[in-house]
Amino acid sequence: MRWDPGCLWLLDQLRLPREEIWVPCRDEQAVAEAIRTMQVRGAPAIGCAAAFGVALAWRAGGAARARASLELLAGTRPTAVNLFWALAEMRRALDAGDDVEARALAIWRDDIDRCLAIGRHGAALVGDGATVLTHCNAGALATGGYGTALGVLRAAREAGKSVRVLADETRPFDQGARLTAWELQRDGFDVEVIPDNAAAWILKSGRVQLAIVGADRISKNGDAANKIGTYGVALACHEHGVPFYVAAPFSTIDLDLASGDAIPIEERPWEGGRYPAFDVTPARLITAIVTERGVFRPPYDLR
Amino acid sequence: MRWDPGCLWLLDQLRLPREEIWVPCRDEQAVAEAIRTMQVRGAPAIGCAAAFGVALAWRAGGAARARASLELLAGTRPTAVNLFWALAEMRRALDAGDDVEARALAIWRDDIDRCLAIGRHGAALVGDGATVLTHCNAGALATGGYGTALGVLRAAREAGKSVRVLADETRPFDQGARLTAWELQRDGFDVEVIPDNAAAWILKSGRVQLAIVGADRISKNGDAANKIGTYGVALACHEHGVPFYVAAPFSTIDLDLASGDAIPIEERPWEGGRYPAFDVTPARLITAIVTERGVFRPPYDLR
Repeated sequence: MRWDPGCLWLLDQLRLPREEIWVPCRDEQAVAEAIRTMQVRGAPAIGCAAAFGVALAWRAGGAARARASLELLAGTRPTAVNLFWALAEMRRALDAGDDVEARALAIWRDDIDRCLAIGRHGAALVGDGATVLTHCNAGALATGGYGTALGVLRAAREAGKSVRVLADETRPFDQGARLTAWELQRDGFDVEVIPDNAAAWILKSGRVQLAIVGADRISKNGDAANKIGTYGVALACHEHGVPFYVAAPFSTIDLDLASGDAIPIEERPWEGGRYPAFDVTPARLITAIVTERGVFRPPYDLR
Repeated sequence: MRWDPGCLWLLDQLRLPREEIWVPCRDEQAVAEAIRTMQVRGAPAIGCAAAFGVALAWRAGGAARARASLELLAGTRPTAVNLFWALAEMRRALDAGDDVEARALAIWRDDIDRCLAIGRHGAALVGDGATVLTHCNAGALATGGYGTALGVLRAAREAGKSVRVLADETRPFDQGARLTAWELQRDGFDVEVIPDNAAAWILKSGRVQLAIVGADRISKNGDAANKIGTYGVALACHEHGVPFYVAAPFSTIDLDLASGDAIPIEERPWEGGRYPAFDVTPARLITAIVTERGVFRPPYDLR
């Protein structure tokens, strides 16, 4: 994403990788629509975009309109907690009479800094020459920049390690095939898209040294909601003794939730029915959670 | 499939469900090409089609050409053992000087009878009102008719039970979304296509009472090769105590193989790379194997 005063520019993730179209959002409605239609997606990226949406409302109509935009933006998507975290931050800025635009910019810049820190902490988990499985897109596109799970891989590479990536296609929205492959190829990674269905069998083959994914919401006990299909990957990793890591900023941790059972799971229309867009991987299947504050291991007691 | 003397008609499975095109195969090359391109797929259906391919060669060029066609047809696809079984049957007919066309017709009719018997044996495993998960297409399209896994569901329904089916999309070839949904809807089943990625999470929800799939090759110890993704479904069923059944004619059992480790796994091109088209589910994850000879349970010692 890019910020011009009065305009948030979003790289349209619905049209990648075929077209690189930057969409201008000049008011909070445009931002809400971009989140709802998934032109921008990825938990941290949604939080940053929403913060800019409040800033746009504030520029156009002052505090009253900015406060109204909080509710509009909170209604866009239910699962990712970073959205609600960012809106709470913006509400605090409004309450304090702070510069709302400056606060949105700080959220964005902090998100990139957090991703860089996640990368620094996580890089040690990736061995030189490792083949790494990932699901969905937890990269630069899903964050303010750099990425969470893919940020760890970027940091490992910057530390001189060779990393090969297997990207789950990630049906039905194809974030792996469309977004992860695109952004990693641009970075010069060796990346191969695999059918989601092949993940368990490839894990059995011993070709994969670790799996790493992002998260949309993590409960205090370490249960992690992420893109549908993550749970199956985690089960297969557990079966084959392959470490399964979750990388996310601390804002992904919902300190109000004792366990993942209470995480609201968004359903989306597809093929004439509806499907759950996320699932919850229980903490016992997660080898470690990588945040900007360090690497947490079970038993998780996140606070 | 349909047989006219001198012509095998195949319902083109590449064009379903949008178009119902019957492809005429008038010689063994046409049959081999239809198998290779997957206009016809499904282990028992491939066996039947190959038998007709030999019959076409025999009509056109007698025993010599029929013998040559055995090798041509054996080279089409590697994993499904029914292909090799059917070709061995045809070789025996040639060796015995039998009517080769009559032998192909018998293989086809026997396949339908075997499916009906599989259905009779398996129907008792399906409770009234059950929601059943299936992967790929093990239906009428995959066999001479009626189906193996879907034959069990048809038989349960004919026994008066209500059955709801969740069909995995089955990427990357979409046999579930294109073929299973099509043939079950035509039969009046309540069927919903789900993303493969959603299967593990839905199994956790308790909504599914059993899973049933077909098989392309089964070793003597009960390990079963089937469409890629089957192994992940079986792992998730095991995790959640959901019975996982395999339904297949006895010709799917490769009596030469002690375990599934030796089953050749076909790889197919996709997204610039190659993916394994099949995986092997270990016997310990399979609740029972339903054949025309009855329902086998572990420890398997198939012969």
